[in-house]
Formats: sequence, C-alpha cells, structure tokens
Amino acid sequence: MTTAYLDDLHVGQQFVSGSHTVTEAEIIRFAREFDPQPFHVDVRAAADSFFQGLVASGWHTGAITMRLLVQGELQLAGGMIGGGGELTWPLATRPGDTLQVYSEITDIRLSRSPPDRGTVTLRSETRNQHGEAVQILSARLVVPRRSGVSS
Amino acid sequence: MTTAYLDDLHVGQQFVSGSHTVTEAEIIRFAREFDPQPFHVDVRAAADSFFQGLVASGWHTGAITMRLLVQGELQLAGGMIGGGGELTWPLATRPGDTLQVYSEITDIRLSRSPPDRGTVTLRSETRNQHGEAVQILSARLVVPRRSGVSS
Repeated sequence: MTTAYLDDLHVGQQFVSGSHTVTEAEIIRFAREFDPQPFHVDVRAAADSFFQGLVASGWHTGAITMRLLVQGELQLAGGMIGGGGELTWPLATRPGDTLQVYSEITDIRLSRSPPDRGTVTLRSETRNQHGEAVQILSARLVVPRRSGVSS
Repeated sequence: MTTAYLDDLHVGQQFVSGSHTVTEAEIIRFAREFDPQPFHVDVRAAADSFFQGLVASGWHTGAITMRLLVQGELQLAGGMIGGGGELTWPLATRPGDTLQVYSEITDIRLSRSPPDRGTVTLRSETRNQHGEAVQILSARLVVPRRSGVSS
C-alpha cells in the first residue's frame, strides 16, 4: 500500500474496503451519545416506528464508513481530508449488518490557487451483506500534488 | 415544544439549538474509533499537518450537530428521519469550540406516493463561538402529514 498524491490518481480508479459487522450494542451506544431517538436506542419502541425495528443513526453509518475508508486501500498523502459532499442513506443499517465500502474516483480537479493541490471526488457506496447500499457518499477530498510538496 | 407534522411547517421557519463545547478528549476518543488519522488523534502530529493543530473528524461535527438538532426546537412527528443531503465543512472544529446549530426550512414537497408524508429540506449551519460555520448541512427529512396519521 503506497501513499498517493494527486498525480498518482485517475478517474475510474476503484477501491474496496475491509468489512465491519455492526452490533445492536454499538448502535445503541452511538445513538445514546449523538442521536437519541427511540428507533436508534430502544428496541421495543423501534418496532413500532417508521423503521419497524432498531436502526443505526445515519451518522453512525457515516462514521463506520469513514473508518473503513481510512483503513482501506486508498492512502492519500496528507491524509483523507474532506471538504464536504453529497450523502444519501437509501436503506438503514440494522444490527448484524456487515458493511463494506466500494469506492471510485469520479472527478479530479487541479486547484489554481494554491497550485500545490487539487480536489478529488470519491464516490463511496457502503453496502450491507446483501449487496444493498445503506449509504452513498460523493466526497470532495483535498489532495496534494507531488510537485507541490517540499521534502 | 410541540410535535410538528408536515402541515405545521412552512418555508422560512427558523430554529436555534442549544450549544455544546467540544473537548480535546472527546475529539480524540471519537477519532480513535471512527477516523484514526494523526490530525484527529495526536496533538503533536496534528501541529505539523494541513490543519496546524488538532481538529475534530467531520463526522464528529456531524454527530454533534445531530444531537443538537434532536434536542432542539424542531420536534417532528415520527422523529427526525433523514434520507440524505448536502454537506460541507468550511472550517474544522477545534478543541474548546462551542457549537450551536442555526436551522431554516428551505423547501417542502408533498409526496404523491405514499400521500401520507412529504420531504422537508432543513438547512442547518453549525457555528462556532466566533459565528463561523464549521458545517453546513441541507438535509432531506421525511415528515408525516397530520391527515395521513392514524390514531
């Protein structure tokens, strides 16, 4: 696994992450701290909710996706630094789901000022064990150019 | 604080959340679990990074924002259920920052099928103690109509 600069990347490059199985306890612990709604923290109340069962906070799915990306094949010079992006949660993450992230570079833009970096758009689909997408994130990442980096 | 259905909402409505002060320990704890990059977990390494100091993972800023929203003025029937949205992190959250969320309804769309709900776009700006935006999130929320809800 090498560290990639902007110059090393091209549109269409694909990456697959490791996987993570999400437990009920993890879902409840995250949600108690950050998203304390009944369908994220209370199994019984969740059964009667919109989701008809306990589901992970979307921010939890996002955070797990981030860890899988950070530990994944694409290691960027300077780290994985996101300026934002578009996010959808087509399906909820449920206890026992095993998540894996499939990413593809969909756009690369050089920065004029400063010229030592650029923006890479990375589209990452987080899929469960049935191959269904629970999150699609098109993130804009700041990536340095090789020539712009002083030793 | 009452529970709002789609029928109770209108474009232009504004809401302000409570506040939360983010500690260095919180930033490191979140990042060790979900975003273990040097500028999120290691004060010394962070000083030499792109950010020139320790910063919170963007997903941590997002999760804190979610908690402030869930505990905030806008209480939706059925809960705050997001289908996705657009996300930007114009500035990083740093240790000691006090965050507060300023939200506005920017769009409301009725669903044809099923007709018992609609989509509300809520633009939420998470600001630090200097009034600077550290996150802007335009989220699409699923909100039930009053008439579509059986007792």
